[in-house]
Amino acid sequence: MEALVPTAALEELGELVGPAGLLTTASDLARYEHAPNRLSGRAAFVVRPADTAEVAAVLDWAHRHRIRLVPQGANSGLVAAALPDGTGVLSTERLRGRFDVDVTGRTLVVSAGWNLDEINERLAADGLHLPVEVGSSPSAGGMVSTNTAGSHLIKYGDVRSRVLGLRAAVPDSAGTVLDLLRPLRKRNEGLDLKQVFIGTAGAYGVVTEAAFELAPLPASRAAAWLAVPEQHLLDVLTDLESRCGPALSAYEVVSPTAVRLLADHFPQLTHRVPDSGGFLVLVEVAAADDQADDLLTSGLEAATDRGLLTDARVGPAHHMWEVRHAIPEITERMDPVLSLDLAVPRSCIAACRADVVAQLALAYPHIEPIELGHYGDGGIHLILPLPEDIAADRDAVNALRMFVYDIVVHRHGGTFSAEHGIGPKNYDAYLRYVPEQVRMVAGALKSHFDPRDVLGSVSLR
Amino acid sequence: MEALVPTAALEELGELVGPAGLLTTASDLARYEHAPNRLSGRAAFVVRPADTAEVAAVLDWAHRHRIRLVPQGANSGLVAAALPDGTGVLSTERLRGRFDVDVTGRTLVVSAGWNLDEINERLAADGLHLPVEVGSSPSAGGMVSTNTAGSHLIKYGDVRSRVLGLRAAVPDSAGTVLDLLRPLRKRNEGLDLKQVFIGTAGAYGVVTEAAFELAPLPASRAAAWLAVPEQHLLDVLTDLESRCGPALSAYEVVSPTAVRLLADHFPQLTHRVPDSGGFLVLVEVAAADDQADDLLTSGLEAATDRGLLTDARVGPAHHMWEVRHAIPEITERMDPVLSLDLAVPRSCIAACRADVVAQLALAYPHIEPIELGHYGDGGIHLILPLPEDIAADRDAVNALRMFVYDIVVHRHGGTFSAEHGIGPKNYDAYLRYVPEQVRMVAGALKSHFDPRDVLGSVSLR
Repeated sequence: MEALVPTAALEELGELVGPAGLLTTASDLARYEHAPNRLSGRAAFVVRPADTAEVAAVLDWAHRHRIRLVPQGANSGLVAAALPDGTGVLSTERLRGRFDVDVTGRTLVVSAGWNLDEINERLAADGLHLPVEVGSSPSAGGMVSTNTAGSHLIKYGDVRSRVLGLRAAVPDSAGTVLDLLRPLRKRNEGLDLKQVFIGTAGAYGVVTEAAFELAPLPASRAAAWLAVPEQHLLDVLTDLESRCGPALSAYEVVSPTAVRLLADHFPQLTHRVPDSGGFLVLVEVAAADDQADDLLTSGLEAATDRGLLTDARVGPAHHMWEVRHAIPEITERMDPVLSLDLAVPRSCIAACRADVVAQLALAYPHIEPIELGHYGDGGIHLILPLPEDIAADRDAVNALRMFVYDIVVHRHGGTFSAEHGIGPKNYDAYLRYVPEQVRMVAGALKSHFDPRDVLGSVSLR
Repeated sequence: MEALVPTAALEELGELVGPAGLLTTASDLARYEHAPNRLSGRAAFVVRPADTAEVAAVLDWAHRHRIRLVPQGANSGLVAAALPDGTGVLSTERLRGRFDVDVTGRTLVVSAGWNLDEINERLAADGLHLPVEVGSSPSAGGMVSTNTAGSHLIKYGDVRSRVLGLRAAVPDSAGTVLDLLRPLRKRNEGLDLKQVFIGTAGAYGVVTEAAFELAPLPASRAAAWLAVPEQHLLDVLTDLESRCGPALSAYEVVSPTAVRLLADHFPQLTHRVPDSGGFLVLVEVAAADDQADDLLTSGLEAATDRGLLTDARVGPAHHMWEVRHAIPEITERMDPVLSLDLAVPRSCIAACRADVVAQLALAYPHIEPIELGHYGDGGIHLILPLPEDIAADRDAVNALRMFVYDIVVHRHGGTFSAEHGIGPKNYDAYLRYVPEQVRMVAGALKSHFDPRDVLGSVSLR
């Protein structure tokens, strides 16, 4: 594929971005070709523009030469949306020029290349944070492009609800840069065009800067692992919601299978959780005052009095999260697995998971599903360890995927992509479940912003 | 204009919606032709479809006959977006078929014709509400179409952040109904098409049903009116934000001129507010437990200790809000006035308002501005009582409008429409301040959904 990029075009690209801006050797390209969950791709080259003007110049170059580029941030995505397929990579990692905190305004305007951990490290001094918890450190641009959600959505909302503005360069014939950056909390001027760039995986343009609404850092946090009988998983949630209000910051459900894996792989962590054999729940409370412990404790006492809990272990929040983060660590080591990212209306969670588990048991008796649920927002991560015969057969894997998706989407009003977004790994599902009327508009916008279809790993048509 | 609708077409329309669905006599039309702030229009007819299928049939009729329709909900908008200009009115008031509360899911799926007060009255039994506070009772469809904001945005976000789904009928040649209604908190399937219908004043289609995320009703509320020196208006805000966290539910600033009006028109209310002669602030706290009073009191004590307040009156929340709502009542009685709806980054509020006030004093010395600010989100409602000579001259009114907008938009990074949206009253400003690149996309979407430009009072091109 590299041979498809003419040498003269590559030289021109190098002149646009300078020596540090263009990588072409196999050893330099390697780290842009691999992502979590053993995802991988192959890059023809990596271009690393250093500011918005360079991004615009690179996109103009791609447009003129009809050369495809996949935008890539921290490369922490889970659907291969940022991985090249013999194409070029446009890495946003050198977009670092801007980091403007407005403490009174409680906003941050930041270049796309800053990542979540760096951002929150710098914001801590001002008592602020960008409240996203995904167990990884995506880039600012990547969070906008995938509308990152995660474990704290229940309290803080998704990234879309925090994006006050953005700047995006698009690969049209005019080299357009859209300046939609003003960090205004209220702005109703007709079409809110920035929404088009949120959650669309870079199909329409490259987000080079974003303005986020920040949250005050909580003054206190408290967490507990609970043993909850399956039939009470939602009762405990709604009970804590009404008692703790917006202080409830996480409600993470772990299935018995996942708990057993934890005991096998991280026995040293098991004393932090109740020994129940059933479902466990990680609950976290984050308060503006120092009362998080009291609030959590009184909430748990009330739930216990109502007979909803069988056991609870309270402990420092970071200890309790280590247990939660250990589970994807385990499943990442398991190979091969199929990792699905589902959501349903939360009142349908119980019926949906029972249906999925029962139908899998009939059709795929050798697969034992592992579940992690963000029950507060209806999210279920379903991890399916694959038998050898299925793993070796691409069509069989896809059939399994659609088997589960059909149940979730058609029988329980859910989605095949709660928070991972759209990439090559679920593009078939996009075509299958997203209504044609929606895809037509997506395609019309694609033609407007990217008439030569040079940007992104999927074109959202 | 009525004569422009052929009798045969009108008869056909009557057959689509039945006798209750079509109004044509002057007395029947009158109430659809008048809105708050003395806004008025003229209707050729009013069509009132009773469900989504009838809306689609009406839009198909409008498309075929090329007859313009303005969608209208509760007709409480402030920029004339829902008023007819000799065109037909498509009233959503009979869209009442659906009211589905999911208490565990904390969601509501509701037909567009239900209004805010009705919705919250019915939800109260389940301890839930749709947390919008605008001092009027817009329809569900209207709130989506204008992305309603209001005084509680600081705690609960705008309507956009609460819309989980919607159904919309569009006037294309296929009679398309877009079903984007699933009430999912997480759904990242590429383009989030519903965003296009939020805040666009019905230019693209008629929202017939919406799914909202609800909030638990707070268990306790407490409110106070504060006397705050101008230089501390933002300090008190950030201080209370850090102490009260997400319990802080309103922070409304009233200028000294507005306070004097209150004393003149509602002397019986003045004992509820401090007698300071300066700026007053209404602050409200809403808590999940019974501690709102304590939380507010301790927050105010801390601010007093820091020397940020000069006086405070605590009282029942509904009493304190009566004072706040009295001010627009007064300004509505004043005639003529120009009412502007501005927002800036909140750290720029002080500089922006000082600039506006100073420049108005120079160029328009006879105009004394009245201000109401949602300072928590950077919003400023600026009400300008008009001298006779300006009021009588449409161009002079428009020049005054642009005089203020230029300062806010060009010098302070703000917007000419914080929450009122786009309608005939500020369409000139739309053309002046919204970048052409944005308007081009808005126009392309208009052509897609409404190729014959039959829907809405402004066409967002």
